[in-house]
Amino acid sequence: MDIEQFRKASLKVIYFICEYLSNIATETVNADVNPNIKPGYLENLLPGEAPEDPEEWDNIMDDFVKKIMPGITHWQHPGFHAYFPSGNSFPSILADMLSNAIGCIGFSWQAAPACTELEIIVTDWLAKEVGLPNDFLSSSEGGGVIQTSTSECVLVCMLAARNQAIKTLKEQNQNLEDSAFVQKLVAYCSQEASSCVEKAAKLFLVKLRILDSDENGCLRGDTLKVAMEEDKAKGLTPFFVLAMLGSTYTCSFDDLEEIGQVCKEQQYCWLHVDAAYAGNALICPEFKHLLKGMEYVDSFNINPSEWLLVNFDCSCLWVRKRALLINALSINPLYLQHSNDNEATDYRHWGIPLSRRFRALKLWFVIRKYGIFGLRSHINNHIELAKYFETLVRKDARFEIVNDVTLGLVCFRLSNGCTASKELFQLINKSGKIFVTLAKTKNVHFIRFCVNSEDAKKESMDFSWKIIQELADHVVVSPAKQELINVLFTKNVLEKTRSL
Amino acid sequence: MDIEQFRKASLKVIYFICEYLSNIATETVNADVNPNIKPGYLENLLPGEAPEDPEEWDNIMDDFVKKIMPGITHWQHPGFHAYFPSGNSFPSILADMLSNAIGCIGFSWQAAPACTELEIIVTDWLAKEVGLPNDFLSSSEGGGVIQTSTSECVLVCMLAARNQAIKTLKEQNQNLEDSAFVQKLVAYCSQEASSCVEKAAKLFLVKLRILDSDENGCLRGDTLKVAMEEDKAKGLTPFFVLAMLGSTYTCSFDDLEEIGQVCKEQQYCWLHVDAAYAGNALICPEFKHLLKGMEYVDSFNINPSEWLLVNFDCSCLWVRKRALLINALSINPLYLQHSNDNEATDYRHWGIPLSRRFRALKLWFVIRKYGIFGLRSHINNHIELAKYFETLVRKDARFEIVNDVTLGLVCFRLSNGCTASKELFQLINKSGKIFVTLAKTKNVHFIRFCVNSEDAKKESMDFSWKIIQELADHVVVSPAKQELINVLFTKNVLEKTRSL
Repeated sequence: MDIEQFRKASLKVIYFICEYLSNIATETVNADVNPNIKPGYLENLLPGEAPEDPEEWDNIMDDFVKKIMPGITHWQHPGFHAYFPSGNSFPSILADMLSNAIGCIGFSWQAAPACTELEIIVTDWLAKEVGLPNDFLSSSEGGGVIQTSTSECVLVCMLAARNQAIKTLKEQNQNLEDSAFVQKLVAYCSQEASSCVEKAAKLFLVKLRILDSDENGCLRGDTLKVAMEEDKAKGLTPFFVLAMLGSTYTCSFDDLEEIGQVCKEQQYCWLHVDAAYAGNALICPEFKHLLKGMEYVDSFNINPSEWLLVNFDCSCLWVRKRALLINALSINPLYLQHSNDNEATDYRHWGIPLSRRFRALKLWFVIRKYGIFGLRSHINNHIELAKYFETLVRKDARFEIVNDVTLGLVCFRLSNGCTASKELFQLINKSGKIFVTLAKTKNVHFIRFCVNSEDAKKESMDFSWKIIQELADHVVVSPAKQELINVLFTKNVLEKTRSL
Repeated sequence: MDIEQFRKASLKVIYFICEYLSNIATETVNADVNPNIKPGYLENLLPGEAPEDPEEWDNIMDDFVKKIMPGITHWQHPGFHAYFPSGNSFPSILADMLSNAIGCIGFSWQAAPACTELEIIVTDWLAKEVGLPNDFLSSSEGGGVIQTSTSECVLVCMLAARNQAIKTLKEQNQNLEDSAFVQKLVAYCSQEASSCVEKAAKLFLVKLRILDSDENGCLRGDTLKVAMEEDKAKGLTPFFVLAMLGSTYTCSFDDLEEIGQVCKEQQYCWLHVDAAYAGNALICPEFKHLLKGMEYVDSFNINPSEWLLVNFDCSCLWVRKRALLINALSINPLYLQHSNDNEATDYRHWGIPLSRRFRALKLWFVIRKYGIFGLRSHINNHIELAKYFETLVRKDARFEIVNDVTLGLVCFRLSNGCTASKELFQLINKSGKIFVTLAKTKNVHFIRFCVNSEDAKKESMDFSWKIIQELADHVVVSPAKQELINVLFTKNVLEKTRSL
């Protein structure tokens, strides 16, 4: 594909993007949010082997529209209320186009100076807006970095914590190998924490205690303290605590101050805050109180790719002492060394991958095009709509609200039980009109409904709620009829809902 | 930014991309490959805090051109001969534009069906073209996945290997905790292997033995066997071997068949092949012999983002038994479960991150737009140019070739020593005209010169070689004069070279 072909092809792609994103924003009624397909649908549509000869661009684009698009779950659809948002905006798309064209790989300062320096600058910008203490800025001993995902933020911080803990333990027993201390290490999180902390613990073979949160889904200092005392009595060493600001299940908030004080009492214990979704709201002054206790925190992550309109991947991680992260991750072969090694940041030492995209560009474009003012408005709009949706739910006596609706997530259920709530969940997602997720805490099943799309409006809340109410009419029946419903009703309800 | 503003802005961005990539392909003489800046250059050009108010798009784009671009190392420049290539092509850029617009997050089948299924299909396509055994196809017990980087491919395979090895060891001693076996585990690679295997070993706290390669940079079965016997005599358990097809330093090839046989003799030992760069050349029939011994291999990675014109990130990993990878990585909370859990692939269980971009699209677009024929031509062009460059080097008696030039990498040095070669390296990179890397194996320093750009031509080899020869004129002097050269000559030489 030469430049003239690209110029022509790109016009068609831009046209497609504009059509797609404008239609999806407005035509809730006509376009289903998720496709009505079964696993394996694409296998039947594509050849089993790669083409030997080059194909015409128009054929490829045509196949994309006819074969790929029908298999897309539309995360930017106003009826998409599952998970948390997947950030998306025009300035972000434009930045990625430029980043791709430049095609640089930012593993060291020398390999991509602007890419490295802009990452330092925009993570500093964001740290200040979020309200992190100065210790987390690059001008101090800390600093920020863009990781691929929350999972990696948590993984590398648990790694740095593990190494520090082993170092401390080794002072008392220098003859043992590092790995011999691993079985002594225990990490903590609440039952509301995201699954990535379990994955990290599984990877490092450290123990993980998943603690009860209080009635508000909040992990309290006392609970943590009791657990730690029990573990220390068994000869274990608490080394890592993950606290949530905005949990995955109900967007609840752990008590940083209480947790931090307990961590401080330990010989060595790293406190990481996962604020992947909710941390973005900290750019609004009214949420700064959530940062109480930050003086105890060692590392902190938010995902602008969730709620600041930046396309995935863009997970910002800040650490109080960058040297601990770098020591845990640096391998420095000659072919990657350069003459500015000592004075420049080499981000390959801050994460797992050696190679890195120019991701700071999209964060920079988005912050500048919206301004912090615009990003705050975006967040406030979602919060207002979530609170509005909450009032709708509360008006219908068949339902109950499960969480404290602070940000954009509303958790609700049918009052008459888990089975009914699960059935309602299935009906909703099979309808194709809106898309939600099912979750469970403290043995109670509920539906997570998150306000996601950039252009989210009151009307789409009304629309979603109307569908949920109608589907609920078919759920609230005697248990004896449940099986019959499963077999007979579902199909009709779905057909009816699909033709709404 | 609304749709009409985006439409307008995107035209300017497309225009910029076309200008940038067409100029950079042709204007070797005028445009420097790397910028003449010092760490911290950007801090002085940008404000210390994020803007409160939205800014005009034109200002942002203007700042991008005036402030970011002067800090870019141009990886697509014909004078960029450092590292390995950073894949880039128009179809890949177009695919990423669409992927960003859709903005789906493919952690499960349900969250992004087309994204999941296309990834299965294109990794199967590529496995067949590369010539992997059928065991690595999704229709068998294996399958392919796109990871962010080689580092992650190696990390997750070492993880799966570790878990399997512990399981085996535990059969003899069920009372010990899993982590207690870690200190028994030892992994192996050659001194030519990429640094990511050291990072993975550091993460898992397992021992790593870095073995001598033979005179061709090849890790041989006998060397591995001796090391393993020594380690077993010490009570250790060999559990993981990383073999290179195309090493980072000299693009050398380990002997898979010999290594595989040694692995097979062990109680449990996982063999991973890192073919990040060179594996792409396996789509050409003349290199299939390198796969001899694949019957012993458990996992295999190549980076289409290095040499198949796909933009980073796109690292393909194939495993023989996907269950081992999935068991090592799966955490399955309710909110991520879906009704097709059992019949569908959920790629979140194949890697570290939960969230994943729609990366299969760019691989699909590139394979179709170029055809395997076109991709083979691209690879063959690079190989021919590298061999041509090798002949140029061999004609100049001051130089010697260090590696067996099989693919696109030429390693050479000044015959009169490491100091001279290092000095030449510094002069080359300070010239701004071409960009290379310095490496060292077996205590010998040399310069790595890789053919990287998509439009690489004979003329740019001639151009680069002319610069290198001229700079060498200033290096080959008596040791006594070295210091003087450093102080006085360098500046003049650089000024001369910069004005070439």
